[in-house]
Amino acid sequence: MRKLILAGTVIASFTALADEGMWQPDQLPAMAEQLKAKGLEIDPKSISKLTEFPMNAVISLGGCTASFVSPKGLVVTNHHCAYGSIQYNSTPEKNLLQNGFLAHSLKEELPAAPGSRVYVTEAVTNVTDKVNQHTAKLTGADFYTAVEMAEKSLVADCEQAAGYRCQVYSFHGGLEYYLVKQLEIRDVRLVYNPALSVGKYGGDVDNWMWPRHTGDFSFYRAYVGKDGKPADYSLDNVPYQPKSFLKVSAKGVADGDFVMVAGYPGRTNRYRTAEEVQNQFEYYYPAAKVLRETLINIIRDTAAEGSEARIKYESMLAGLANYAKNFTSMIEFYGKSSMLHDKKAQEQQLQQWLAADKQREQLYGQVLHQLDTLVQQGQQHQQRDLILGYLGYTTMLPTAERLLRLAHEKQLPDMQREPGFQQRDMNRFTSGLERIDRRYAATVDKAMTLELLKRYAALPAADRLPALDKFFGIQDKLDLQQLQQQLDQMYAATTLADKRVRLGWMDKSVAAFEQSKDPMIRFAVAMYDTNKQLRDTNKQLDGELMKVRPQYMAAIIAYYQSQGKPVYADANSSLRVTYGNVKGYSPKDGLYATPFTRLQGITQKDTGIEPFDAPKAELKLIKDKAYGDFYVKSLDSVPVNFLSTVDTTGGNSGSPTLNGRAELVGLLFDGVYESIIGDWNYDDNINRSIHLDSRYMLWVMKYLDHADNLLDEMVITH
Amino acid sequence: MRKLILAGTVIASFTALADEGMWQPDQLPAMAEQLKAKGLEIDPKSISKLTEFPMNAVISLGGCTASFVSPKGLVVTNHHCAYGSIQYNSTPEKNLLQNGFLAHSLKEELPAAPGSRVYVTEAVTNVTDKVNQHTAKLTGADFYTAVEMAEKSLVADCEQAAGYRCQVYSFHGGLEYYLVKQLEIRDVRLVYNPALSVGKYGGDVDNWMWPRHTGDFSFYRAYVGKDGKPADYSLDNVPYQPKSFLKVSAKGVADGDFVMVAGYPGRTNRYRTAEEVQNQFEYYYPAAKVLRETLINIIRDTAAEGSEARIKYESMLAGLANYAKNFTSMIEFYGKSSMLHDKKAQEQQLQQWLAADKQREQLYGQVLHQLDTLVQQGQQHQQRDLILGYLGYTTMLPTAERLLRLAHEKQLPDMQREPGFQQRDMNRFTSGLERIDRRYAATVDKAMTLELLKRYAALPAADRLPALDKFFGIQDKLDLQQLQQQLDQMYAATTLADKRVRLGWMDKSVAAFEQSKDPMIRFAVAMYDTNKQLRDTNKQLDGELMKVRPQYMAAIIAYYQSQGKPVYADANSSLRVTYGNVKGYSPKDGLYATPFTRLQGITQKDTGIEPFDAPKAELKLIKDKAYGDFYVKSLDSVPVNFLSTVDTTGGNSGSPTLNGRAELVGLLFDGVYESIIGDWNYDDNINRSIHLDSRYMLWVMKYLDHADNLLDEMVITH
Repeated sequence: MRKLILAGTVIASFTALADEGMWQPDQLPAMAEQLKAKGLEIDPKSISKLTEFPMNAVISLGGCTASFVSPKGLVVTNHHCAYGSIQYNSTPEKNLLQNGFLAHSLKEELPAAPGSRVYVTEAVTNVTDKVNQHTAKLTGADFYTAVEMAEKSLVADCEQAAGYRCQVYSFHGGLEYYLVKQLEIRDVRLVYNPALSVGKYGGDVDNWMWPRHTGDFSFYRAYVGKDGKPADYSLDNVPYQPKSFLKVSAKGVADGDFVMVAGYPGRTNRYRTAEEVQNQFEYYYPAAKVLRETLINIIRDTAAEGSEARIKYESMLAGLANYAKNFTSMIEFYGKSSMLHDKKAQEQQLQQWLAADKQREQLYGQVLHQLDTLVQQGQQHQQRDLILGYLGYTTMLPTAERLLRLAHEKQLPDMQREPGFQQRDMNRFTSGLERIDRRYAATVDKAMTLELLKRYAALPAADRLPALDKFFGIQDKLDLQQLQQQLDQMYAATTLADKRVRLGWMDKSVAAFEQSKDPMIRFAVAMYDTNKQLRDTNKQLDGELMKVRPQYMAAIIAYYQSQGKPVYADANSSLRVTYGNVKGYSPKDGLYATPFTRLQGITQKDTGIEPFDAPKAELKLIKDKAYGDFYVKSLDSVPVNFLSTVDTTGGNSGSPTLNGRAELVGLLFDGVYESIIGDWNYDDNINRSIHLDSRYMLWVMKYLDHADNLLDEMVITH
Repeated sequence: MRKLILAGTVIASFTALADEGMWQPDQLPAMAEQLKAKGLEIDPKSISKLTEFPMNAVISLGGCTASFVSPKGLVVTNHHCAYGSIQYNSTPEKNLLQNGFLAHSLKEELPAAPGSRVYVTEAVTNVTDKVNQHTAKLTGADFYTAVEMAEKSLVADCEQAAGYRCQVYSFHGGLEYYLVKQLEIRDVRLVYNPALSVGKYGGDVDNWMWPRHTGDFSFYRAYVGKDGKPADYSLDNVPYQPKSFLKVSAKGVADGDFVMVAGYPGRTNRYRTAEEVQNQFEYYYPAAKVLRETLINIIRDTAAEGSEARIKYESMLAGLANYAKNFTSMIEFYGKSSMLHDKKAQEQQLQQWLAADKQREQLYGQVLHQLDTLVQQGQQHQQRDLILGYLGYTTMLPTAERLLRLAHEKQLPDMQREPGFQQRDMNRFTSGLERIDRRYAATVDKAMTLELLKRYAALPAADRLPALDKFFGIQDKLDLQQLQQQLDQMYAATTLADKRVRLGWMDKSVAAFEQSKDPMIRFAVAMYDTNKQLRDTNKQLDGELMKVRPQYMAAIIAYYQSQGKPVYADANSSLRVTYGNVKGYSPKDGLYATPFTRLQGITQKDTGIEPFDAPKAELKLIKDKAYGDFYVKSLDSVPVNFLSTVDTTGGNSGSPTLNGRAELVGLLFDGVYESIIGDWNYDDNINRSIHLDSRYMLWVMKYLDHADNLLDEMVITH
């Protein structure tokens, strides 16, 4: 699924050909000819303006993308993006997740899960000069801190406007900075979702896979105060009136048709060095895959299927499994591809081009070497960093550490606190602490912690942290029984499992922490200096990288420009546009993935057992060939999902897929298994995104779920 | 793989449309128009004559098909059909199986495995009247015996001609009988086989699967005495000069091209009743699959990988696994298909057509009911019959029983003995006893026997056999330990594991058996009367079926003829012709299997680990795009395997695939997984046969194995 997670260490393909490219909207006018030739019918300039149609209809949910599809703030996104809200409103007696949900009027709409937001991007401003204003002579950690300070100040200014959330995004590793200003709508309500067996048909088995038959859509509505401004949930609130909304196409697309996707892709690594590629694929992915699979097994072993504990961990299990599968694909296709070889050849080409001109050579000749030196420095303790990173999947130790950090940060004026600990972050901080109740079981947490500490203890002494060793009595030979006993005692004695206690710690002083006897808090205190030192070391390295990587990117951009090619920045969760065509592909010699799947495919897959348990009423409609208004003759069916060449990644989930007239013809929700490695290297032959077809969505709404009220509310084009 | 096994209980689809049909050559002239329209360029009449080109170039190996491809008796067939002979000539030092083998001259050619034969069909005569001459008033076992006697007499007359092997084949369940006279060439030699990693590329993983990249071909040569007549192996023998041979096409076929396959398909069940279909798919296949998987596990557990015992059982393991996979597909696709429903509808149509005419109604109106009554009678003890049938996979008990039966049969004049125990069968009988040395390990045999007896003992008493119960002390509750001890003692005490002892028993009297203390012989003696009684009961039922089924088939044929449709008989190992087109298919919604695979697919699949371990030299040729003379522009490669709609089944392996001019464009070697159920019901949408492409064979011969001598010997058309 193309929902966003940031996957550990980060990283370059040198070719922006074919349909590769996640473009910043303001880059599009320069590409007008190409876009028109491809099939764009509306003026490319209009896509470049965030406050005009269609871009002002494209919104972020944070981690997912969505779009307005009615003048009354109706929002369509993926089922898996609204999953948390559906689950939040479900009870064993009234299981909206299993059975689906449809509000027949505004009154019946339900509050989305706490923390749900709709972000409408209103302005994107280049603030590179402002960020760099005072950094010229700084290096390392000082440089890092100065940039962070400039960002915080820009954000604070921007957020003076009530109801807005602002963020500075770094492009090309720090070559450019943009301030993004988004209206933050806080009252979001669940309007309609199909049954799980439609919305998540195929489940984890089909995840990342083609052929696909998933009805991955759901509807929210954005509400604001009577004054039209964002407000907390209230019965008095009224539907938000977006400046524009997308019409939904009942005509859909055909093989070869132009499509374009606007959304918030999270992270790609198309410009990483060969050194980074090699380390990521030969160390990080294999090691992280093993850790994920280990944690999955521990959760399964300690939380029996169907138990209360298991329910709490289902979401984490899905997340661990989603990227374990992702990493497995990465490893598989790295072995089959010539990516590393190509990457090295590209670097050589770049170096030759640089060497051919004295000025270029002087400016950029050494930058790759400098970059790789820093990269290697960052890999020095990567085994330890990886294990401690996955310790972040546990609850107790990290929660204590976060609370103690807050106490320290609170001693500083708000502007000097680190991001995540400022006043503006406190709502999220609080809801994070609250959420633990629904996501934590001591037995599971303890078993996960034990496993990770065991792996940490097996590291060479040079990789270990003295403070951590001391706290758990770890020596070169691990006394497993003692470690186990200590953890038993800690989990038995801590009171952090109590929500009120956790929230109470948000207001306590550092001294209170230092006097506490809670073993988790004592752990945080014991680790504080070490953690601070690690963060400082990272800042030092990051600061140096933030100076060098932009130069490397500048060299690449200059090289491309010399060839007349536009350059897009790696994805960074900011709004991008990608375009391409509806197109099948060959996943392996002798097989061709056709661009559309059909209703009949649902019946073919159906076993009656989850995740292949389509509603009986749907199977009956298919059996009766009740294709209705959405019959496509060439398919002798209704299309369910389709493939295209658009360039997407995690975070793009829920993005509207638009035709040349900017009508909604589908929702982006996944990529095919063979193109997962596309985050590193777009391959025209196998990079395919998977879209829900608007005709399947309309068919389900009309004939299966009878969502006539919504169909009436939307504008449907024929 | 399409090598023949006869799979237990036997069974009808009512539509002979599209490319369905395994036609007797003499049926083809009547279909001349259709064949010409499809793309046949030669005269359809010529295919109907067995002694003319091209049919006299198509030969049987017994279980596989092959063809002559040179005037000097060069034979091409599948690698998996010559497997036994390759293995027979392999030693750890000179591993022809692993490394491949090429005789550069006649002198270097090696004797094929003992018992290897080339059968050239010279005459097929309708002998229905002769078989039925004296049977009019007989019923049951008497009818059965009379038919058997007539067949034996026809065979004996036919085999008066030295060097011939004759057999009577029953068509349409006994509606027609044909006497087939085949020249039996006994000196067969191995000429050339590619390495296992070409000839069996993909191994059991890819077996029945598409996409496929298997170089499934090998070459034999037929030798005869200097007088041109069949002779035992001798250095004085000379290559056989066939009346004709096939030219090999270097041009190959393209998508949509006409292809035809001539060969010896083993068994299909296209005309079985709904009752038979239901029992086969709902009882037999699931139960037999479990038994196969159980035996596979027992062999794996008792014979460690790489052990001498395991080597002896590799062939049995492959056979058990091949059809466990086959049955799994049968069960899977039965569940998905409407076969049973369709079959019932067809029976109803037939009954309605019969009821519409008084004479028809009188002749055939009751025949389906009569047939189903007999079928149900045959299912009465099917659980027991299945277990005892699989006891046939063990060695010791069945060998003792067979030897005792021989002693009894030998008391009769040759013509009165049962088939398999006549003088003409003694060579095969002997080589069967000899072969045990290479296929038997006491520990494995005992474990398999114990498991099957355990399952037998769990049957209700009414299903069990008193003699068998008595011998093993089986009562309603099994004393497993006692059974185990008894088997331990039997295997410890028997001398049947000694080849000379086994062969010695071939000449002993019934009295000698009755006095023997060998526990295996004692078992045979204890079971003899019961076995005889079971055979007599079967003869009674078979005799009745042999009267009723032909009437049912006559009704079906009359029904078809009323619609102007020709009817083909179910496969029965006799020579048939099937035709169709090169064509891909959709294995599932959203995927299309393209009709050709390419060299690049080998590299894609290759892991360096068996069975995906193509020779390094081959991978290098592919990497270097050394496509040579066999490059196909539309594929940008050399085609490896291709799909067609021809109607084939086990026994067709090695069959020449011919173009419209009867040139060899490939070798049939398998069917796709989705079409395994095609043995019961040909489905135009998914029934696909898999062929080795002649261009891949020639490419391997020319560029990888440098078999220039054979390329020179064959006639290659461009």
